[in-house]
Amino acid sequence: MTTLRVALCQLNPVVGDLDGNADKVLAALREAEAAGAHLAVYGELVLTGYPPEDLLLKPRFVADNRAALDRVAAGTGDCAALIGFVDQVAEHDRPDEPGERPLYNAVAVCAAGRVVDVYRKRLLPNYAVFDEERYFAPGTDTLVLHEVAGARVGVTVCEDAWSASGPIPRLAAGGAQVIANLNGSPYYEGRLAEREKMLAGRAAGADCPIVYVNQVGGQDELVFDGGSLVLDGAGQLVARGPQFVEEVRVVDLELPDREGTEPLRVVPVTAPRPVAGPALPLDVVPAPDRAEEVYRALVLGTHDYVTKNGFGDVVIGLSGGIDSTLVAAIAADALGPDRVHGVLMPSRYSSDHSVSDAEALAAALGIEHRIVPIEEAHKGFEAMLADSFAGLEPDLTEENLQSRIRGTVLMALSNKFGWLVLSTSNKSEAAVGYATLYGDTVGGYAVIKDVPKLLVYELCRWRNERAAAEGTGPVIPEHVLTKPPSAELRPDQRDDQSLPPYDELDPVLEAYVEQDRTAAQLVADGFDAALVARVARLVDRAEYKRRQSPPGPRVTPKAFGKDRRLPITNRYTG
Amino acid sequence: MTTLRVALCQLNPVVGDLDGNADKVLAALREAEAAGAHLAVYGELVLTGYPPEDLLLKPRFVADNRAALDRVAAGTGDCAALIGFVDQVAEHDRPDEPGERPLYNAVAVCAAGRVVDVYRKRLLPNYAVFDEERYFAPGTDTLVLHEVAGARVGVTVCEDAWSASGPIPRLAAGGAQVIANLNGSPYYEGRLAEREKMLAGRAAGADCPIVYVNQVGGQDELVFDGGSLVLDGAGQLVARGPQFVEEVRVVDLELPDREGTEPLRVVPVTAPRPVAGPALPLDVVPAPDRAEEVYRALVLGTHDYVTKNGFGDVVIGLSGGIDSTLVAAIAADALGPDRVHGVLMPSRYSSDHSVSDAEALAAALGIEHRIVPIEEAHKGFEAMLADSFAGLEPDLTEENLQSRIRGTVLMALSNKFGWLVLSTSNKSEAAVGYATLYGDTVGGYAVIKDVPKLLVYELCRWRNERAAAEGTGPVIPEHVLTKPPSAELRPDQRDDQSLPPYDELDPVLEAYVEQDRTAAQLVADGFDAALVARVARLVDRAEYKRRQSPPGPRVTPKAFGKDRRLPITNRYTG
Repeated sequence: MTTLRVALCQLNPVVGDLDGNADKVLAALREAEAAGAHLAVYGELVLTGYPPEDLLLKPRFVADNRAALDRVAAGTGDCAALIGFVDQVAEHDRPDEPGERPLYNAVAVCAAGRVVDVYRKRLLPNYAVFDEERYFAPGTDTLVLHEVAGARVGVTVCEDAWSASGPIPRLAAGGAQVIANLNGSPYYEGRLAEREKMLAGRAAGADCPIVYVNQVGGQDELVFDGGSLVLDGAGQLVARGPQFVEEVRVVDLELPDREGTEPLRVVPVTAPRPVAGPALPLDVVPAPDRAEEVYRALVLGTHDYVTKNGFGDVVIGLSGGIDSTLVAAIAADALGPDRVHGVLMPSRYSSDHSVSDAEALAAALGIEHRIVPIEEAHKGFEAMLADSFAGLEPDLTEENLQSRIRGTVLMALSNKFGWLVLSTSNKSEAAVGYATLYGDTVGGYAVIKDVPKLLVYELCRWRNERAAAEGTGPVIPEHVLTKPPSAELRPDQRDDQSLPPYDELDPVLEAYVEQDRTAAQLVADGFDAALVARVARLVDRAEYKRRQSPPGPRVTPKAFGKDRRLPITNRYTG
Repeated sequence: MTTLRVALCQLNPVVGDLDGNADKVLAALREAEAAGAHLAVYGELVLTGYPPEDLLLKPRFVADNRAALDRVAAGTGDCAALIGFVDQVAEHDRPDEPGERPLYNAVAVCAAGRVVDVYRKRLLPNYAVFDEERYFAPGTDTLVLHEVAGARVGVTVCEDAWSASGPIPRLAAGGAQVIANLNGSPYYEGRLAEREKMLAGRAAGADCPIVYVNQVGGQDELVFDGGSLVLDGAGQLVARGPQFVEEVRVVDLELPDREGTEPLRVVPVTAPRPVAGPALPLDVVPAPDRAEEVYRALVLGTHDYVTKNGFGDVVIGLSGGIDSTLVAAIAADALGPDRVHGVLMPSRYSSDHSVSDAEALAAALGIEHRIVPIEEAHKGFEAMLADSFAGLEPDLTEENLQSRIRGTVLMALSNKFGWLVLSTSNKSEAAVGYATLYGDTVGGYAVIKDVPKLLVYELCRWRNERAAAEGTGPVIPEHVLTKPPSAELRPDQRDDQSLPPYDELDPVLEAYVEQDRTAAQLVADGFDAALVARVARLVDRAEYKRRQSPPGPRVTPKAFGKDRRLPITNRYTG
């Protein structure tokens, strides 16, 4: 039996911030060392942040990432560190093809001031939001084990764990006492359980414990939830950190001695060293329920987009409707109410409750708000367009106009005060194109763009339940939760005049958008044929709008954006 | 010597239009048959259109593509046809993994009413605008030759030709008398010459003629230029069709008898049949010069985006500036002047010439135009924002406001009349973020988004030269070409107050954006350090704007969009 003290370094790097990320890695290393850890395990590509995307095509960026690694490695001592970085074949190894030096998604095994060895990720995801074959060559080096403080460690990266034909079974058969798996695994609802189930099977199948460390934080459309964990060799979950926060968690693993059936070469990294002080306990942080998990993902995504891009405050158009209400609550939770500004922009068609509900929300959240009625610009445009529209009936044009006036007001406030506009369109709307392009969709970050309408309600109810549990009053005004949804762009308008009810719409959207079922298949599945035909046509025709929408955090298994790359010009209607 | 009569079927399919594309393939086949062809060669994935993107993730789409193939194959007779389609491993070949049936980018070798054989593309591009490893498995079947009318043909697809370690040398060594290469190769300026050079080397290296057939037409951000061609076994260009038009070109190839040094199995497809009638000549259509080539690519891209997406007319904001002038000229050439509407939207800061130059343009092009002064909405917004902006100096906010009013007017006309808005922002502007988001950038299609400012001038001059050569008056008013660029959003504004002169800016942008040089490298290259620092910062900070811009045709080696996938949240400044 070997006791290995491991620090799970669940960090929140910023893509491209090589110096800042290196500092973060070193700070976590100091924390691990202070706790007497033998081994510090970081996230995938922690030095560049994940995913670095086309920064990887800049040779200088890759060189700078190596320099950052060398600085970090120089700071290591007798606590070994597994640090994600971008590796490149050295120039002298490719004398015949100087322009052709492949990159690898790699792990530096560091100790005693230097890079002792490098592991290169073998399985590269190139599906969903991942494009790793665009950048990386797969690792093909002969597998080895790394001896850290007397324990034989098998190093792997993310996707390596997801296939039974990946390296984990071979590392275990080679004599590994524990597998370290470095991840940049983005969140969606339910993903934590999927990961744990897969990892449990892999650990049990290999009869070898797994230490899984994930990145945390928001990066453009992705949220990384952390949730780093340890499974024992029977596949039992024995330790898990929290989701959505940075943390260095130090645990003691009791690793049985284990001979390999097909022994691998062992690379010595650090010498055996007894653990100092009392044994550190294993502990499983409880996972939140679905609504809380999604809500916290949205809060983290919003916080990180705003702050990593250098913004202070945000501004939100408050219509008194459920969508802008939820966005304001998330923003206040993410940034604090002092950094959130609400703008009420009533029109000649706005109900009284649109203003009173929004005012109640602003009061409950404690955010600044102002009222900017849009009538003057509305009249101005009507006069300007009178000649062009003479003799024509009002239609969607006049409705969109009001929405675009509001977007223009928000952008004027954004330009003047440097506030980031948070847009409030939800996934159901984005799917069927119900939002006005350059109107509702205006903004730098679309907080709920991947949240279907029914889930919007669920999140609002959960937020009020939390407030009740904390003994404060409701955050979401009750009337917002009960009134029928309306865009209020013409007299007595309601969403269900233009769209199917959301409890019919959302299930069709989930099947059509997230599961790639065709219209014909949905009818065969038992959905109403007219409903399916209508929804599928709306979704297909709205692709051009979605292509121009701001980024927002992914919380479902398939979000619009790089997760779903459908052509705009597309005549398939199957 | 074998004479093979080959039809190069350079078609313009629509992505997703399986029935329409199948009809197009059959119509071309009838044309080839009428000319007595032995073999009809089509473009890559002609049945689905290229690239079908995530339509490929819908199993039903793949099944429907197969049904379309079967219908086309049933229509073949003694003229063999090489038809691009999506192949999938049959269910009975994967009994153990029913969910895991890889797709292939494939060619159906069809004759006598059936699919005789299938070739699967072996090299899959996964760089630049290509994501083929997202969808396809590489072909690994043993190579064979296909005997068509007594000639041994080696079948390949696009990327297969681009590597010396691809299948062409082996097909030639196996005894191929000619290589057929099916392509979906998108255009950029200079690409035709690059292709010819590469193919000449490949043909000469293999001592084997190559028949190269390319798709033509616009598909979202890509333009396929056609330019199908034939090289002889010495690598000499012996036939080339025109770029930018659909065409079935039938040629007689005299193929020397040729024994393979490492013979491959030969699959019989059609029996020998003497050519009918007189020999068909080989002919090289001259390539246009650079300006004409780019202009025609923009015309085709615009025409196809508008028509394939079901629009009739387009509307353009005419500022009297060079960008909107060029876009209007392209639109009129693409769609005819009757389908183009111009809108002049003068503000309190507009010069007289902004109206007179735009009116001169409208008259020269023969397009309808109207004047919608923006003062009333401008005043309306000022009144609405007066409280919020009290005591603050005017700044960019007030400038952007005017641009957004114009965008809103264009969208109102679009909504009311069903006209597609063509936006007029150029690549230099998009690079440095000089365009107003939701203002200048408004539109369904951004005609010159990949055209740097200096090239905008070059294209305008070329268009006037063509008009002169055709004996008509200039299309672009001379004053537009000579006046200094200005956004006219404040008194006496000129672009060079905010930006470096375009003859300094464009070269830095090309190096930074298209060649992935970092700022530090550009300084080492000899560019002015202050200029580089300023430009690099502007480019990096404008990524969020570009992410929300409409699609537009790629004409340079690296366009913004899926060709350049940089994160928005990005702190790298190296």
